[in-house]
Amino acid sequence: MDERAALEQISKTLSEAGDDAAVVSLDSTSLVITTDMLHETTDFPDGITRYTAGWRAVGASLSDIAAMGGQATAAVAVYGAPGFDPDELDAFIAGAIDVCEAVGARYVGGDLDTTSELTIATTALGTVDYPSYRHGAQVGDCVCVTGSLGRTVAGLKAFDAGDMGYGNELFQFTPRVTTGAALAEHTTAMMDSSDGLARSVHQLASASEVGMSLHRDAIPTHSAVKEYVDDVSTRQELTTTVGEDFELVLTLPPTELTDARETA
Amino acid sequence: MDERAALEQISKTLSEAGDDAAVVSLDSTSLVITTDMLHETTDFPDGITRYTAGWRAVGASLSDIAAMGGQATAAVAVYGAPGFDPDELDAFIAGAIDVCEAVGARYVGGDLDTTSELTIATTALGTVDYPSYRHGAQVGDCVCVTGSLGRTVAGLKAFDAGDMGYGNELFQFTPRVTTGAALAEHTTAMMDSSDGLARSVHQLASASEVGMSLHRDAIPTHSAVKEYVDDVSTRQELTTTVGEDFELVLTLPPTELTDARETA
Repeated sequence: MDERAALEQISKTLSEAGDDAAVVSLDSTSLVITTDMLHETTDFPDGITRYTAGWRAVGASLSDIAAMGGQATAAVAVYGAPGFDPDELDAFIAGAIDVCEAVGARYVGGDLDTTSELTIATTALGTVDYPSYRHGAQVGDCVCVTGSLGRTVAGLKAFDAGDMGYGNELFQFTPRVTTGAALAEHTTAMMDSSDGLARSVHQLASASEVGMSLHRDAIPTHSAVKEYVDDVSTRQELTTTVGEDFELVLTLPPTELTDARETA
Repeated sequence: MDERAALEQISKTLSEAGDDAAVVSLDSTSLVITTDMLHETTDFPDGITRYTAGWRAVGASLSDIAAMGGQATAAVAVYGAPGFDPDELDAFIAGAIDVCEAVGARYVGGDLDTTSELTIATTALGTVDYPSYRHGAQVGDCVCVTGSLGRTVAGLKAFDAGDMGYGNELFQFTPRVTTGAALAEHTTAMMDSSDGLARSVHQLASASEVGMSLHRDAIPTHSAVKEYVDDVSTRQELTTTVGEDFELVLTLPPTELTDARETA
């Protein structure tokens, strides 16, 4: 069974699963909580600094809070590594602290573990007034995305090309927490683009039981992609299929479009 | 740098680190959050079922909530495995759900990841009225422990002896959440015994800048240890040094002892 089939199986047992984060009621407050694991071999390309790794790993969970329309409160992480170099550890924590500060949250620590490869597990916690799920899209809604796509593709190309500073800069994305919370009043469905635009749209459509189509030329492309990929159709393919951009993919009624644009 | 030195370094940067869980203020509520990672090679002996692994991994984080004197609200986990067997996954989730229910919390899902060995990262969330830290012990306080020690040693011996059912039963501990919350009004310092009694006492003493001594014969031993270890002094050594029993180690003024015993 692959990860996708396994996730589907879990969502049958756990009603809270299947979205970017789980909503938990606490007295009159709705909390959102989400967790994620990243690895050296699959998530951290050669050249990435520990600062960027800390930023990005914690940022990935903060993005899941954003995807629910939540405000981020705090984050924790487990830092698993073959050994603990004081400078690497300091840099990792500095990255984790800074990405939290960038979205008004606090990094409050976590745990250490000895692992064969760098393995980071992060959890973010937030509150939400208008939870935005994957399943609310309606026929006639517009499909929208925040910012532009391809930042991570460009980052990977930068690392491949030996442009380490630029690669690290591109990999330090700002989770769309403020935008997500502002948009949540307008959206009918929302998630983040961590699996890539094409898969995200497919997941929103499937959860909402509607069809969706995209205008290829309307997909906003990150300027850095153009620096590394000349061919337009290759660019379009990469920006729609490569994930980990951590933008928000959402649907809303056309009547909400102007207001949503202004809030975001 | 080893894990202990690394944790010490972190606690200099992060004021919230250094306890079993971090306390986060949210409006008028104090939340507690904690995260942990467990591995097949170090934490899951041969013979452990996926149900027990789910129970124990999530239980370890719930125990950290208990150690702060918190009430547990919810837990999430990342299940990292080389492959996803539907039955193993169901069993893991059932264990996670059941340990949460045992302490009045809800298991609300998490994430999946493909890893070379079984790797579980868990996070628990709770609320706390009287946070109990490691640093409050005073000269003259009593050092106490909940329940008895050695349950995990006995479980390991049971697995070694091929008593798989008994090993699994012993490994499914009930996190001391109710007891911890009740004790927190009386304690001056508290943590869980996940590193073993001796180390826990050392950590409480060090954080509180006091000395502590234990009465060897007063250390309560789990009845199952006697089934596997005949020699009394070996038993005493094992129950004081082997960790992962997830009992609470705490200090309180002698005047609170009777009340604390009654509440717990």
